[in-house]
Amino acid sequence: MKSSQALRIAGTPAPRLDGIEKVTGKAIYTGDIELPGMAFAKILRSPLPHARLIHIDASKAEGLSGVFTILTLNDLAGLNYQYGATYKDQSIVAVEKVRYAGDPVAAVLAVDEATAEEALALIDVEYEELPAVTNIEEAIAPGAPLVHETESVKTELRGSRYGAPEKFKGTNVCYHFGYSRGDAAEGFKKSDYVFEDTFRFPKVQHYSLEPHVSIAHFEQDRLTVLSSCQDPFTLRDHLAEIFNLPLSRVRVIVPYVGGGYGGKLYVKTEPIAAALSWKTRRPVKLALSVGESFKTITRHPARVRIKTGVTREGRLTARECEIYMDTGAYADAGPRVTQKAGYRSLGPYRIPQVKIDAYSVYTNTVPAGAFRGFGAVQVTWAYESQMDLIAERLGMDPLEIRLKNLLKKGEAYTAGDTPVDCDLKEGLLKVAQALKWTRKPSKPYTGKGLSCCVKDAGGTYKIAGATVKMSSDGSATLLTGTVEIGQGSRTALSQVVAEELALDLDQISVAQLDTDVTPYDVSTSASSSMTVMGLSVQRAAQDVKRQLLRAAAKILGERADRLTLKDGKVHARKGQGISYSKVIAGCFGSRAGEIIGKGIYQDKKSKKAVLGSPTTFWEVGWGGAEVEVDPDTGVIRILKYISVADVGKAINPLQCLGQDEGAVLFGLGHTLLEEMVYEEGQLLNPNLIDYRVPTFRHLPEEFSSTLIENGNGPGPFGSKGMGEGGLLPVASAIASAVSNAVGVRFYDLPLTPSKVWRALQSKK
Amino acid sequence: MKSSQALRIAGTPAPRLDGIEKVTGKAIYTGDIELPGMAFAKILRSPLPHARLIHIDASKAEGLSGVFTILTLNDLAGLNYQYGATYKDQSIVAVEKVRYAGDPVAAVLAVDEATAEEALALIDVEYEELPAVTNIEEAIAPGAPLVHETESVKTELRGSRYGAPEKFKGTNVCYHFGYSRGDAAEGFKKSDYVFEDTFRFPKVQHYSLEPHVSIAHFEQDRLTVLSSCQDPFTLRDHLAEIFNLPLSRVRVIVPYVGGGYGGKLYVKTEPIAAALSWKTRRPVKLALSVGESFKTITRHPARVRIKTGVTREGRLTARECEIYMDTGAYADAGPRVTQKAGYRSLGPYRIPQVKIDAYSVYTNTVPAGAFRGFGAVQVTWAYESQMDLIAERLGMDPLEIRLKNLLKKGEAYTAGDTPVDCDLKEGLLKVAQALKWTRKPSKPYTGKGLSCCVKDAGGTYKIAGATVKMSSDGSATLLTGTVEIGQGSRTALSQVVAEELALDLDQISVAQLDTDVTPYDVSTSASSSMTVMGLSVQRAAQDVKRQLLRAAAKILGERADRLTLKDGKVHARKGQGISYSKVIAGCFGSRAGEIIGKGIYQDKKSKKAVLGSPTTFWEVGWGGAEVEVDPDTGVIRILKYISVADVGKAINPLQCLGQDEGAVLFGLGHTLLEEMVYEEGQLLNPNLIDYRVPTFRHLPEEFSSTLIENGNGPGPFGSKGMGEGGLLPVASAIASAVSNAVGVRFYDLPLTPSKVWRALQSKK
Repeated sequence: MKSSQALRIAGTPAPRLDGIEKVTGKAIYTGDIELPGMAFAKILRSPLPHARLIHIDASKAEGLSGVFTILTLNDLAGLNYQYGATYKDQSIVAVEKVRYAGDPVAAVLAVDEATAEEALALIDVEYEELPAVTNIEEAIAPGAPLVHETESVKTELRGSRYGAPEKFKGTNVCYHFGYSRGDAAEGFKKSDYVFEDTFRFPKVQHYSLEPHVSIAHFEQDRLTVLSSCQDPFTLRDHLAEIFNLPLSRVRVIVPYVGGGYGGKLYVKTEPIAAALSWKTRRPVKLALSVGESFKTITRHPARVRIKTGVTREGRLTARECEIYMDTGAYADAGPRVTQKAGYRSLGPYRIPQVKIDAYSVYTNTVPAGAFRGFGAVQVTWAYESQMDLIAERLGMDPLEIRLKNLLKKGEAYTAGDTPVDCDLKEGLLKVAQALKWTRKPSKPYTGKGLSCCVKDAGGTYKIAGATVKMSSDGSATLLTGTVEIGQGSRTALSQVVAEELALDLDQISVAQLDTDVTPYDVSTSASSSMTVMGLSVQRAAQDVKRQLLRAAAKILGERADRLTLKDGKVHARKGQGISYSKVIAGCFGSRAGEIIGKGIYQDKKSKKAVLGSPTTFWEVGWGGAEVEVDPDTGVIRILKYISVADVGKAINPLQCLGQDEGAVLFGLGHTLLEEMVYEEGQLLNPNLIDYRVPTFRHLPEEFSSTLIENGNGPGPFGSKGMGEGGLLPVASAIASAVSNAVGVRFYDLPLTPSKVWRALQSKK
Repeated sequence: MKSSQALRIAGTPAPRLDGIEKVTGKAIYTGDIELPGMAFAKILRSPLPHARLIHIDASKAEGLSGVFTILTLNDLAGLNYQYGATYKDQSIVAVEKVRYAGDPVAAVLAVDEATAEEALALIDVEYEELPAVTNIEEAIAPGAPLVHETESVKTELRGSRYGAPEKFKGTNVCYHFGYSRGDAAEGFKKSDYVFEDTFRFPKVQHYSLEPHVSIAHFEQDRLTVLSSCQDPFTLRDHLAEIFNLPLSRVRVIVPYVGGGYGGKLYVKTEPIAAALSWKTRRPVKLALSVGESFKTITRHPARVRIKTGVTREGRLTARECEIYMDTGAYADAGPRVTQKAGYRSLGPYRIPQVKIDAYSVYTNTVPAGAFRGFGAVQVTWAYESQMDLIAERLGMDPLEIRLKNLLKKGEAYTAGDTPVDCDLKEGLLKVAQALKWTRKPSKPYTGKGLSCCVKDAGGTYKIAGATVKMSSDGSATLLTGTVEIGQGSRTALSQVVAEELALDLDQISVAQLDTDVTPYDVSTSASSSMTVMGLSVQRAAQDVKRQLLRAAAKILGERADRLTLKDGKVHARKGQGISYSKVIAGCFGSRAGEIIGKGIYQDKKSKKAVLGSPTTFWEVGWGGAEVEVDPDTGVIRILKYISVADVGKAINPLQCLGQDEGAVLFGLGHTLLEEMVYEEGQLLNPNLIDYRVPTFRHLPEEFSSTLIENGNGPGPFGSKGMGEGGLLPVASAIASAVSNAVGVRFYDLPLTPSKVWRALQSKK
């Protein structure tokens, strides 16, 4: 490995390659694309949270001029119409029941969106309303109405890890993750104190600037889909299965994506677009509104009961954790998120005895799935809030109790998993220092809080391939399955290629992502791209380099291992060096041909690892906040926010800072503002007037983000992935600061002014 | 290599994979594509064959509503605006002079084609007319007006092989190929007879059903071009050079192509489309009319003087050949075509002493370039016509004299080149047998002729890469740079993949050709795809197979070399075998990932070979015709046509027959119908009313095509390329039959009724 000092392009704050295109509005997103003969789709959604479908009559709608077809349950014969990220519990359009207000019942394809919209109103649907469950409590109550009949779910299980044990038959529980170490009950007995607290996390939405959009086109027995998605190869798997096609006959192309945050993983509305094209053989565009994306996928609301035993010196001795994750009407990635929530509820601390149970439960609400922080956001909110409560109850300093219990670098998180790969204290102390840490407020109504969170990152079991093509002039094109969702992957991955091949960034292009030609990649998720895809890209570039050096060695009459690359030339120890184009011309005997390098990355499997595969790296988020609470209004002002991220090596420090700042701002959303509100099974605020997301106005008055670069990540040049860590400590740090400022402790989010004000009132 | 008997899919007449799409009109050609914001271009062409450009005023046209911009010589600063397949003698639009009637002078970009057309008329151009040369005689006459000032041509020479010797300075000769063996003059002295004849070949056009069309789009400093072209990588080279871009920033995508025949090789109108987009940053479509394609590229008219010495027994002893090729106003591929014409003028016969000189000359006519049969069509017409004349003069049978002189399998064509790779007599005897050969007509006005032609095929120095991606379900996608121009390459190359990987054809897709992602390939030309690309594809598939077997070996606990592929499974000697999807799942630990195989083919270079690289294989065309001539009208009826092609192994016999029949029909065009007629420098017939191409009505009344499969071609499973051979003997075989029928010998083409009638009249 090159030493950091020797890096030329990796490690520099190169401007984003797609920046100018994007700020000038020239960048092509799926919604910008028009195909000849394209028709437009709209979805008819259930108005009821839970009902049996009695009858659908689409004849009036079909008769409307400009309508090409209507897709209903009557069209699904011959398709494997049930699908899902983990369980096949969702269908292209509703078949027997609708399970949430917003569940797709039918879809119209018409000459334009207005006609399609008009036709929706002409479809008659007869429902038999059923009692609904819209939150965890209702869902797990004995005798609760069932969102899915357990039998049907059970027979659709995927893989043994997601097995639903027998005892949940006839309940709304669709998944259970259990983990234990030692004997928690025994641990509690030996503890000086045992504290038990329950925390709740609200239902929130990703709100990508670009709602879900896809274009599907069946031509003969071949399906092409352009989609704003994060995992085109997984989407291809799902579509191939639904339409009974070999994978080689399904092509997924991904133009620019306007934000994903997990909400564009797996399969969303693409099957509807594809089924309409399958019926009509026309290109079909299905573009959701913001309100419809709110009715497509959300984050899991959670209830986390956490019971922790401590010694009187503040050492953690035992923990029991019971987590319920509300996965909404369909499992989507719920089981995986729940598994991770369970696994991540251990936190960054040394706890000898542990017992964890995490459950996914169905409710009659919008499905919940993957979302930046995947299961960690809910549990970090809980365990870090409880750490403060424990400190308070023991009369200890929140920093002190954390430092006392933090895992050391090299220590096991769980047996068989990758040991902790950084110094957890280092970051926390940086936060404390920047905050001028003290729990003694200098001014009334101000306070400070800090937090340290960790997640196993990189995703469970990743596979990523990449190809680098060097053309006869020495310039290179990168084929990568990582989706540019705004995170800057094109730039950072190009920097890796530029570094390995001693090229300038303007010599490198990134090819359009197209499953037909791009090497396989599982998904753009879990902070994995810099590490997992980064390694694959680096290996592909190194493969080009090897071939280049071998060819140059012949020409120069020198051993390949004595040659180096610099400024687009191969250099022997002496002499001027020869340009890559001359080497390639030498190789092919003319100014033609190219050098193709392949790279692949594959996680290890291990039976010893709790999740079957050791974590790729540990992503750590340290955060600290200073707040001021207005006692008259309940408004929380963020005076200062300090974020520290462990990135191993920042391949592009500018982008890393942007990612970290963005993560914090994201965290401010669910901490202060965001919550999807239900009343009688109806979502009341699926729009940006009633559902507030953070804006520039919500930025902390003083905001700093610091990158720790210890160079020992597993990615290229010692890098680790990042982009989620910064999100994790926000809620607990701010809630801690609020508690410090006004002496009120919150157990649920968001900390809206009215909630804070009411709490202050009831305290008086 | 598998024996022919064992083949399962290669060797079968599989229906064309793109057939249904094409016959139902669903296949997407460049002209079908619309991009958002696309503008339309039209070209202003010179009305004069030769003139100096004095002044262009585009202001009126620019003022027309709907016009975005006008491209003239004033825009070219900053571009490397001169380009060309061999010499950079052509410019995007005319700069100092116009050199043929039709030469692009300016281009309009407008909101639609009608507006662009309207604006053309508003551009004022002042010309100073110059004397023109419009045929070989005028061009080589002493003191002829110069199309190009020699100096400027000379300084633009590409590569040493295309050097213009000093003695041509100040003439219209732009290229000379000389080859000699032994001493021809000495040979003639020792011959019993020396015959000298001169043959002419007319100017004809490719007439692809789809005229030239391209879409260019500059975005930032990146150019994307969709084009109906045969060599996207070469086009990319040219565009990168013109616009000063690295190759990685030029992307060429090739949708379906509606015929090429060489007329879509190198670079044609793409620089105009690209320059308009470079000026406006809009997507630009430039679609030529049929008439405009006639003014873009043609086949070389030729004058071939051939002097051959023979013994009285009819053995050839010496040959001198002087070939003039009229390359029109710009060299395009003229020098290469001329080189090949020279080299191919030796013919399939053993001639000890040879001297050949072939010249390209400029004239003020439409440029001539590559065209199916590339230089061979003109010289085979000459040498095979002369063989008949020699036989006649010696009182020999035309079949007998040929059999006496044909090269044997394994014999050298020239020293250092690949020896003749098939039995030339075999095919000729097949033709004779099918024709029931005799020179004694059974009926008046009927006659028979036959012909044997050979060309070095596969192109000079080919490089081709291919990739096969096998997805996790075992289906495969092929990435190949061979353009599907109607020849059936997708189907035949997929058959090679299917054969190697024991898959069905419907498991295989061919990815869109896109220089960003498709491996490099020089061009789709010279009957090369089945051999050159075929080998590359086969190697890529074998690379997949190797990886698949290696992975299966681990799972099955068996040595890889004891495993075989059958029906999508890997089989050990015993047991059921395991599916590819299971092998891949075993490889990656989940139903994910893919196996990528790479293949490459590269011709050898050899200083001993006359053309620097031994021919990939020899393409042979044998043809025989029986005709009836109507003495009252001069109309030639083709009673029977027999074509025999050496294909080594027909990977898809149905397509091979289609190619061979198409080649014969093509040959009927220039033999009977086609000729571009000039008068005072003006092309009189650039349309399908006045320029006739063969239709079904022109099919021979009895028409048979036979494939010789001796299995010893260098391509996959013993295949050779084909598709041009059938074209070569048509003119000479028919002219010979006409001579046999009515005793009149023609030295120039086409054999139109009026020409035949006049000859009959003057004979009386």
